[in-house]
This record gives sequence, structure tokens and C-alpha cells, in this order.
Amino acid sequence: MTNNEKALLLHEQWQGKISTDAKCSVKTREDLALAYTPGVAEPCNVIAKDPDAAYKYTLKANTIAVVSDGSAVLGLGNIGPYAAMPVMEGKAVLFKEFGGVNAFPICLDTQDTEEIIETVVRIAPAFGGINLEDISAPRCFEIEERLKERLSIPVFHDDQHGTAIVVLAGVINALKITAKTKEDSRVVINGAGSAGIAIAKLLLNYGFKHIMLCDRVGILSENTSGLNWMQQKLMSVTNLEKKEGSLSDALKGADIFIGVSAPGIVTKEMVASMNKDSILFAMANPVPEIMPDLARAAGAKVVGTGRSDFPNQVNNVVAFPGIFKGALESRASQITEEMKLAAAKAIAGLVSEEELSEENILPQPFDPRVCEAVSNAVKSNVVTK
Amino acid sequence: MTNNEKALLLHEQWQGKISTDAKCSVKTREDLALAYTPGVAEPCNVIAKDPDAAYKYTLKANTIAVVSDGSAVLGLGNIGPYAAMPVMEGKAVLFKEFGGVNAFPICLDTQDTEEIIETVVRIAPAFGGINLEDISAPRCFEIEERLKERLSIPVFHDDQHGTAIVVLAGVINALKITAKTKEDSRVVINGAGSAGIAIAKLLLNYGFKHIMLCDRVGILSENTSGLNWMQQKLMSVTNLEKKEGSLSDALKGADIFIGVSAPGIVTKEMVASMNKDSILFAMANPVPEIMPDLARAAGAKVVGTGRSDFPNQVNNVVAFPGIFKGALESRASQITEEMKLAAAKAIAGLVSEEELSEENILPQPFDPRVCEAVSNAVKSNVVTK
Repeated sequence: MTNNEKALLLHEQWQGKISTDAKCSVKTREDLALAYTPGVAEPCNVIAKDPDAAYKYTLKANTIAVVSDGSAVLGLGNIGPYAAMPVMEGKAVLFKEFGGVNAFPICLDTQDTEEIIETVVRIAPAFGGINLEDISAPRCFEIEERLKERLSIPVFHDDQHGTAIVVLAGVINALKITAKTKEDSRVVINGAGSAGIAIAKLLLNYGFKHIMLCDRVGILSENTSGLNWMQQKLMSVTNLEKKEGSLSDALKGADIFIGVSAPGIVTKEMVASMNKDSILFAMANPVPEIMPDLARAAGAKVVGTGRSDFPNQVNNVVAFPGIFKGALESRASQITEEMKLAAAKAIAGLVSEEELSEENILPQPFDPRVCEAVSNAVKSNVVTK
Repeated sequence: MTNNEKALLLHEQWQGKISTDAKCSVKTREDLALAYTPGVAEPCNVIAKDPDAAYKYTLKANTIAVVSDGSAVLGLGNIGPYAAMPVMEGKAVLFKEFGGVNAFPICLDTQDTEEIIETVVRIAPAFGGINLEDISAPRCFEIEERLKERLSIPVFHDDQHGTAIVVLAGVINALKITAKTKEDSRVVINGAGSAGIAIAKLLLNYGFKHIMLCDRVGILSENTSGLNWMQQKLMSVTNLEKKEGSLSDALKGADIFIGVSAPGIVTKEMVASMNKDSILFAMANPVPEIMPDLARAAGAKVVGTGRSDFPNQVNNVVAFPGIFKGALESRASQITEEMKLAAAKAIAGLVSEEELSEENILPQPFDPRVCEAVSNAVKSNVVTK
């Protein structure tokens, strides 16, 4: 049996990867009278007077929604809300198992921006946070921004910020190895969708000065036609030299390549044209933009991918469970830039000086310290609305 | 510590009466590769081709939403979505513990009929059924009817139909004891909200011919002003003699009283004016329309209430878990009148001839046979859309 066949069979056996389970007993009349009527009226009355008490007496305290419209699922594209379910259930499992956070998948039967926003606002009372997932760009930017304005619970699009946090963590440690600096390093990000744009923003906030975004048409600049509003917005803070050309042109003299794009599009010649001790995060899945051995042979010093069978796996699971654990435990009303930066530093900090090497810049996904470190980083940067 | 104080303290300790839990392991890279990426793409691809496969591979197979807008919660009234949460969580617990059905509370931050309908339609993909709860009349009627039209999963307003099913079950057995018949018995239902109306409809469908609805203004007839559309609709099949007057007038010569109204509004004189061997379901909570001892002293033969400390408790929990268990297991696209009638007969049938008495017309809520019997009744009446 292939792994794919095994995965399909297991999904059939699971018939849903999460269950909802009672935390209270209802085996006797006395139990019922406390967990349900008439006793349940007590917390209801308290919350009716003070809605904030929902955090004290209900699952809002420790539960988030994993919301998707199925428009940009993994490498599968726009497969809709039903087909997106196994992914969202999987995400809910990871939230619980890695972060202790209850999560329930909400797969929306609409891909209309306004309808998505309205729907999430309306179902928000039961949830302490909203994790947006696999919603296509540029709709994901507007949906997240407007939900953040309308809700007083954290809203976090993991494809953007989870990825950006882990990439920044890897970059922080890669800089140490290569003795490059954030101020002087030239960064090329290939793929200007949700992940690429979020990575650019977070690197800028961290202090990088020279960032260039590329996509299928090549280097993005103010003159590129067909940019979406978020890409346009970024043109005032990236590619300040207004360079034009192909990815190949962009990489000449670059220090860092970050790929959230397509398999095999970086050649060894391109790597060779980069500055000495170059850093590459080739995160296309399952086949990276360039295979690590080829990149190293062409002169790259540090290479990360999205894969678990190569060194330096960039895996969101080191970020998102701790992000929401910290946000929920501290009753944060949003996930701020400061929290994201602190989370990235905390992840990077888990690799000690002795452990740090070209092939070991990120903690392992199953390292039990990760969630706690990220959660604490979030908590020490809490602001409330 | 009073029971109320204890209930409040327990709710604080639980901090949510349900949790979401992983049914699959994610402790190794191999686990992750099967439950999440890349293995998860397999069921996604199958469902993308055939959305119906969601029942085979996702929690849609065995999970429902408990949806409320908090507009008519227990005896607490319009307390809104946050304060309604403890009740909806409790309901979710009962679904799981009594019926093995996963249930998640969705408390809506809107009380607008159109918005509620749209929102439930949009979140439906993840769910195999929708249990509407504590939504005020007459909006609940329209919301349920239109959701049934738009969705191909069962939609069931428990305050209406759960109550009606259990009342009918009790009535079926009470008739046996009193040797009254459905065709000849005169029924007075006091309280013309969601429960009262649903009870009237189900009794009519069961074969009762003489039903009168009353509310605060007295007997409802075609001439009553201010009826909502659902009450008006019922005027063509109830109170065919076009009687007018007070509850007291209605009860003269009646055989069966069903109260879903207010404490203490039935006097012993009213009971005495009913036909011999009268049957009373006085279900106002926590204080019934008339106390059982008083009713019995005034001539009632069978008295049921909503309370667990009196005989003949009318408790929805004997219906709703089995209803959804049966509907989900048989992939029913709706809960039909036939299913409700069959469920009521199944519940009544659990009290054997030997056990049946004036003080024992309904099975106990904790009787393990109940859910299975109701579930089987539903399954043997399945229609699919």
C-alpha cells in the first residue's frame, strides 16, 4: 500500500479527525441539574450582565475557529469548502495536539469577500480567536484586515503570518552563521501571494532594508501592471531601486532567496550569481525551487525547504499553536507585529549557539519547548483593545 | 454551597463543557504525513471530485451544529449569543453523551432572520445536521422552514419538535391508561409559541381531531387579533368550533391539558371542570402550571411535568440525541413528520404494559434503550432528497 492509499484509508477509518467531547459528566440527575437545566442558568445570567464573563464560563476561553473558503488549499488550489475539510480538520488536530487549543473547522460555502466577513463576525461569539486558512490572495488581505477591525478577538491568517514568522526565525539564525546583517542583506522573495507578501512585511518590520518581490512576470516594481492593491502598497517599501527584470536578474548579488513559488525554477547558475554565503529558503512543496544539494554545490551556505526529509524544514507548526495558545491565555485582542517578531526571535532562540549550524537553524516541529516559547513571546507583548 | 453556586463554580472550572479532540495521532513525522500534508491531499482530491465523499472522509458524517441566536433561552428570554453559550454547550454535551453525536455550539451575533438563514447555509459544509435551539417564535418557524428548503442536511428545531415528540409519547401512553381515544379527546394547549404550536401540529398529524390553542389572551381563534402567521395557519385546523374565552373556558369538558406556559396558572377548579380521568402535562419550568398533587386531588388521572423530582418527566433528552443519531447514520436529508411520529411511538413503546401506570408513562432519560429506539425509528422512515 502506498502512503497515499494509506492516508485515504485512514481518513475513512477516522471519519473526521476531530471529535467534540464532554468535559463534564451527565450520568445522573444531579449532574444534569448542574451542567444543564436548572444550574446552567447561573453562568448564563452572569454572562448576560457581563459578556466578558464568557471567557470565564464558556469554551470561548480556549477555542478557535479554523476558517476557510477552500479557495487556495495546500498545493491543490480552489477545491471548495467540502474538499478543504480534511485539511482544516488536520489543522484543528495540530492546534490541539501541539498547543492544547480547541479548534473547530468552519468551511464556508461562499467565496465572496463580504459574505465571508459577515459570516465570521456572526459566528464569532463562541470563539476566542479566528485562524484564517487557505483563502486566496488578494481577498485574504482584505478579509483579515476588516475582521481585525470588526472583532475584538485575534484574527490570524496562518498562510501569511505563520509562514512569515518561521521564515524570519530561520533567517535570524542564518544571518548568525553567515555573518550577514539585516541592514545590508539583499533579499529576493519569489511568489507575491499571501505568504510572500507577509514575509516581506515581517522582514521589513524586523529591520531588513533591501527586499525585492518577484512573481511569474519577474521583479515587481511600481511599473508592473496588474498588481493587486496589497502588492501595490508594498511597492513603496520594497525594490526602492526600481529594478526591473527576471528572477535571474533579481538574484544577481542577492544575499537571501525566499521561495514560496514553484518547483525547480531556481538554477545553480542563479545561485552562483548571488553574493557569497548565500541563504536560500526554497519552500515550494513537495519539490523545492532548487534541491538543497544543488544549491549548496553552487555556493549557498544555508538552505531550508518545506520538507521534513531535508535539513532546516520551515514548518508553520512551530508557530501557530503557540501563537493562539499565548493569545488565548493572555486574552489578547489581536496578534500584533510585535508578537510576531517576538515569536520569530523565540523560535530562533531555541537553537543554542552550540547546536546552531548550516544544517540546523530551526527547532524541530516536535520539540516540546517550541509551543511554550512562542506562547510566552506572545504573552509578553500583549495589548488589549 | 447552594446548587446554583455549585453550578457556577463548576462552569468556571470547566471553562467550556466541551473540547475538541484529535481522533488521530500526530506524534511522529510519519503521523503528520498521513493526517496532514502530503497525505491529506488524497481525501481532498476525492471530495473535490465528489462532494458527497465528505460523509466518508470528514466529520460531516457524525457532527452537527447547535445553532442559537440567544433570543429565547430556557426560562431566561432574550439574553443574546454570549449568555446562551452555556446552554448550547450543555446541549452539545447531551448530544455526545446520550447519542454519540459530535455537536458544536454556534451562537450567532445577529437576530435577523435573513442573516441567520444565510449564515447557517454558509457554515453548513462542515456539518451533517443543524439543531436550532432557543430561537424565538415566530422567527424560528421561518428560519427552520427556509433552511430545510436550502439545505440537504437535516434541520431540526428542538424546542419545537423535540418537545412535541416527547409530549406525544407521553400522551400515547396516557391514553392507554385512561381509555380515551385520539379521535374523541379534547386537547387544550396553553402557550402558542414554538413548543405549543409544534405540539399541536404533531398531535394533529398523529390523529387528534379536537385541539384548542390558548395563550395569554385566552383561546385563539380566527377572530383573535395579533396572531403571527404560523398561529393563523393553525386556526384552520384547530378550534374548529371557533370557541372564544379564557383558558378556564377552554378547559371545561377538555380531556387533555398541555401547558408550555407559566407557573401556577391552572387552578384546581379548572381541573375539576375537565372531563373525567383528565390528563395534564404541566411543563412550565421550574414551577408547573399546577402542582401534580393539586391536579390529582382535583381529579386528574395522569400528570406530567418538566421536573425530574415528580413522576412523568417530559424531557427532550429522550428524543433529540436519537433523532440526530438516526438521521446521521442513515444520511437522512431531513427529519420528516413520519420520523417524529415513529420516534414518539418508539419512546412510548419502551414502557411495557406491566410497567405502565399513572406515574410511569415515559421512559427515564438515562434509560440506555431510549436513544437506540428513537434512532431506529428515524432510520426506518428515511427519505433522501
